[in-house]
Amino acid sequence: MKRIGVLTSGGDAPGMNAAVRAVVRTARHRGIEVMGIMRGYHGMIHNEVELMGARSVSNIIQHGGTIIKSARSKEFRNKSGRAKAIRTLREHGIDGLVLIGGDGTFTGAIKLLKEWDGKAVGVPGTIDNDLYGTDFTLGFDTAVNTALESIDKIRDTADAHERTFLVEVMGRQAGFIALEAAVAGGAEMALIPETRTTVKQVADRLARDKELGKTSSIIVVAEGDEQGGVVDIARQLRQQFQMDTRICVLGHIQRGGAPTAADRLLGSRLGAFAVELLCKGKSGVMAGEVNHKPIAVPFEHAIKRTKPIDKDLLRIADILAT
Amino acid sequence: MKRIGVLTSGGDAPGMNAAVRAVVRTARHRGIEVMGIMRGYHGMIHNEVELMGARSVSNIIQHGGTIIKSARSKEFRNKSGRAKAIRTLREHGIDGLVLIGGDGTFTGAIKLLKEWDGKAVGVPGTIDNDLYGTDFTLGFDTAVNTALESIDKIRDTADAHERTFLVEVMGRQAGFIALEAAVAGGAEMALIPETRTTVKQVADRLARDKELGKTSSIIVVAEGDEQGGVVDIARQLRQQFQMDTRICVLGHIQRGGAPTAADRLLGSRLGAFAVELLCKGKSGVMAGEVNHKPIAVPFEHAIKRTKPIDKDLLRIADILAT
Amino acid sequence: MKRIGVLTSGGDAPGMNAAVRAVVRTARHRGIEVMGIMRGYHGMIHNEVELMGARSVSNIIQHGGTIIKSARSKEFRNKSGRAKAIRTLREHGIDGLVLIGGDGTFTGAIKLLKEWDGKAVGVPGTIDNDLYGTDFTLGFDTAVNTALESIDKIRDTADAHERTFLVEVMGRQAGFIALEAAVAGGAEMALIPETRTTVKQVADRLARDKELGKTSSIIVVAEGDEQGGVVDIARQLRQQFQMDTRICVLGHIQRGGAPTAADRLLGSRLGAFAVELLCKGKSGVMAGEVNHKPIAVPFEHAIKRTKPIDKDLLRIADILAT
Amino acid sequence: MKRIGVLTSGGDAPGMNAAVRAVVRTARHRGIEVMGIMRGYHGMIHNEVELMGARSVSNIIQHGGTIIKSARSKEFRNKSGRAKAIRTLREHGIDGLVLIGGDGTFTGAIKLLKEWDGKAVGVPGTIDNDLYGTDFTLGFDTAVNTALESIDKIRDTADAHERTFLVEVMGRQAGFIALEAAVAGGAEMALIPETRTTVKQVADRLARDKELGKTSSIIVVAEGDEQGGVVDIARQLRQQFQMDTRICVLGHIQRGGAPTAADRLLGSRLGAFAVELLCKGKSGVMAGEVNHKPIAVPFEHAIKRTKPIDKDLLRIADILAT
Repeated sequence: MKRIGVLTSGGDAPGMNAAVRAVVRTARHRGIEVMGIMRGYHGMIHNEVELMGARSVSNIIQHGGTIIKSARSKEFRNKSGRAKAIRTLREHGIDGLVLIGGDGTFTGAIKLLKEWDGKAVGVPGTIDNDLYGTDFTLGFDTAVNTALESIDKIRDTADAHERTFLVEVMGRQAGFIALEAAVAGGAEMALIPETRTTVKQVADRLARDKELGKTSSIIVVAEGDEQGGVVDIARQLRQQFQMDTRICVLGHIQRGGAPTAADRLLGSRLGAFAVELLCKGKSGVMAGEVNHKPIAVPFEHAIKRTKPIDKDLLRIADILAT
Repeated sequence: MKRIGVLTSGGDAPGMNAAVRAVVRTARHRGIEVMGIMRGYHGMIHNEVELMGARSVSNIIQHGGTIIKSARSKEFRNKSGRAKAIRTLREHGIDGLVLIGGDGTFTGAIKLLKEWDGKAVGVPGTIDNDLYGTDFTLGFDTAVNTALESIDKIRDTADAHERTFLVEVMGRQAGFIALEAAVAGGAEMALIPETRTTVKQVADRLARDKELGKTSSIIVVAEGDEQGGVVDIARQLRQQFQMDTRICVLGHIQRGGAPTAADRLLGSRLGAFAVELLCKGKSGVMAGEVNHKPIAVPFEHAIKRTKPIDKDLLRIADILAT
Repeated sequence: MKRIGVLTSGGDAPGMNAAVRAVVRTARHRGIEVMGIMRGYHGMIHNEVELMGARSVSNIIQHGGTIIKSARSKEFRNKSGRAKAIRTLREHGIDGLVLIGGDGTFTGAIKLLKEWDGKAVGVPGTIDNDLYGTDFTLGFDTAVNTALESIDKIRDTADAHERTFLVEVMGRQAGFIALEAAVAGGAEMALIPETRTTVKQVADRLARDKELGKTSSIIVVAEGDEQGGVVDIARQLRQQFQMDTRICVLGHIQRGGAPTAADRLLGSRLGAFAVELLCKGKSGVMAGEVNHKPIAVPFEHAIKRTKPIDKDLLRIADILAT
Repeated sequence: MKRIGVLTSGGDAPGMNAAVRAVVRTARHRGIEVMGIMRGYHGMIHNEVELMGARSVSNIIQHGGTIIKSARSKEFRNKSGRAKAIRTLREHGIDGLVLIGGDGTFTGAIKLLKEWDGKAVGVPGTIDNDLYGTDFTLGFDTAVNTALESIDKIRDTADAHERTFLVEVMGRQAGFIALEAAVAGGAEMALIPETRTTVKQVADRLARDKELGKTSSIIVVAEGDEQGGVVDIARQLRQQFQMDTRICVLGHIQRGGAPTAADRLLGSRLGAFAVELLCKGKSGVMAGEVNHKPIAVPFEHAIKRTKPIDKDLLRIADILAT
């Protein structure tokens, strides 16, 4: 391995810069050159490539976003697009890749590896934490803490006005952010895709809580919950149960901001580990971390297997919200 | 003046607790007792009143919301409701009131003072900063900083993905939050009720910025801007100008959170000043601050006159966003 | 088990309130009454005990400190002190205890259990993370993030003025905070009790970094490092190597503040688990968490065995700082 | 005016980047070129100068520190140093300067203007707020809020352990930060250079507060208070009055961090105003803001006159801490 490329792809996540920094510095420490491929697969196709020295990643670990930009590339899904991308890799003498991203990124990598003779290792970068084979993904801890800060603020108003709030957080297919933010925020309920909750159950719970003496409530809803988003839930609660609620959709603020310590450490560890895997000749795997130990997980497992939600936390959530 | 009442009414605002604390401690310093009237005018009608000692306001200055709760009261708009409220005031021997709130609060106070023989002084508590006769209202500085933190986070993603974001902040009738958050956040534009901006002008600006080499943009929109909210603006940009934007509605997170230094200082100053005004026999006025000096403003002026937006800041905003 | 007591003891740590809340609500869910013992063992001796209902722990999960106060008690080290404490426990019919704290707390518990016929379970509450048998202790994640925010701020000045800063964080016997904050903060070095670093090595590293083109440096120092604190290190660097550095001692700010999501979740989980252990008849153990699973660890192991520092992180730290 | 130079000098302050951005963009808007002079007067002497385009100041408004670096220059105090600096200015065709800094910066400017035929306007950049002729200086609002966040955290521990803390903030000659942070933080006292407080008075106050039922206290001390810093005050309280206190020195964290909205707005306004002053032919003045209006203040007034502390706030502070 003489020269590797690094890219970030898909939705940006806090901690990606820590991973890029770790890739660059670990590679250089081993005498390997690093090329930054701008805008993910888009830049790989369009030959947007820059040599990255050790100083090029100074003073970035504390920033959200990604200094090598990110994008989604339709072109890369076609063989012709990937052929152009492979031409770029050959032109620059890149024989290894570190791909920081999620589902789509690794799906692209699987295809690429069938047509290209280099090696590729992934780093899990997605705030949703929905990749199998790693306890945490980059950006998840930051996203949960950002959601939590927002819930703390909304609690002030919920408490002052004795109201019920529905707070929508990210997580279309996975309720990890919603569940952790709900328990940590002392919310009364979490509506997540992994468990089915009807609007009637929500209404019953709110009614019971009122009887118990609760004067305000917060319900955290994962985006894409089967109920159809907080606007719809609020409408149903009003129409079917004459219950008045306020809504708040946190949206994109969950993606940005200075990464937490955990995300910077994870990015640092996994970026370094990804380079070490390449050096050992590994390919087609994601650098993950399970029980505080680095582990290589085949791309197929990472994206096709379903990471289970913490059943014990679900159980506790219910008791603690009483 | 032997015993006064204090209440918070309307939307809660960070800094209200600082004001409540200042009212209680200043009054006690002058040998006056303070009754906390819970839930604004609602509690005044329903006799929800508690004696507040100096220790009852310990350790609250740092919290958002309001420990004496807030509510909106329809009943208080009717003479019969106010008659009940006056009965409560008399029963407790309250001869002065400090009313912390905004438009609706002072409108209620004007009516009350025609039917009650006590005195009432207001403290401007509303994040929108849309009260005439005071440079700032409680909660405004905190709301701007909260909006700003969100914009900083969104900037990470806008920059990484080279996208345009429309960020909706609070301010139905007034663009103070939007304008300050936009300039402080380095946003490309602020759409506020005080100035008319067509969707075509937005599209033209985005097109020009792209030519100038800008790869991402943030446009801050005051809630209730004539365009009809960010969802609608995004739709028009897409349909009429084929421009793809993302939206983010900050919503209620702007109301909560630990107050900034400025809001705690303002609450402390105006709470103390309100009690001093009562002691001087003043009534029917809001305790405001203009050019760093306390000033008493008649309720009618505070709510009926229009506070102008800072023209110079509007002018600079345009130049700095280039 | 009909009635249990809960106390917090030793240095306060963010997440203690989450644990108290979880103890109260889990116990009540199982039909057990909870008495809050104020000021740790001090309150146990002096009969400062209050019944805690479900609402008594509302709206506390987001706050640092501990609502049931903490203290260190010399009296409890004597048999006569403990005899008084046992009298209090008997008077109130307390047959189980949840003790939230660190070393000193569990040392006291070991003695108490020899003289009292009730059961006691611990929860690891100390920002230093130096208890064996649990991956993390309450407050550690918050302390690391607080240290990190400070390092980010100091980086601004270090970078603007091209200076070297020595930042002292907490951790007299253990370098966990220092190492994690250093790696996450992109610091150039971490001086921790677990590894020996001479002032000459620091000077050599600073000299080498300067040659590599680094214009500013941050060195994180664990309190009680063998060098004797940052004041002394700065003096030696100046006198022996003519190197000019600035110092910053973070101190008590690391103990407070709103707990992070991780600390609130850990407090919630371990508080609930501690009650479950008591219900199963366990005693003399700390409720810990290893590899995301709850585990009961004998008090003796928790306080006498040494938790090892992460060797792999130490190795990476060095490479990433290059 | 065809080409101006901009520099930051002295201690860095949050908001300096906003000011640099405003200078660059306002100048370019008026067709004037801007040269960034690196490291203050040091770079002026050593010809460290770079052309700054509009994009060079993109995405900097949210960061602390200063992208054009800062330094203190002994050489500039000598005529020979200044002669070199003037050579640099002439070589680059710079006929106007915007100097962002404090006391030392403007003292240097006064000397420079006697020997150089160009024009120079200042922008007040110092967290201490101790410049006459402007209500606020860049960085002050951020520093107060940073101190406040720390005080809030220390309050958690002070409250949990029922202790007294002495918190030292910046402000060697001026108590602005200390007074505002104390009142906003609900501290019991502020020890500032503008008023004389003996250790006996501190002890008396603490004794009285204890009698009033206060269980914890925070005393904010301005650096350089006549008592000699918190270490010394704590020692005296212990030795002379047997009072046990804890200390915390906030230090350099007060200089860094993302600027608050107020500091970014002030930097934006004053940076723009400084360029406008240069364009009107003004020189030897600082661009200040009094009562929300821009104002030009002669350098001599800014540095030699004493800005008074807010007497009314001092008075209120005492009442509110009761």
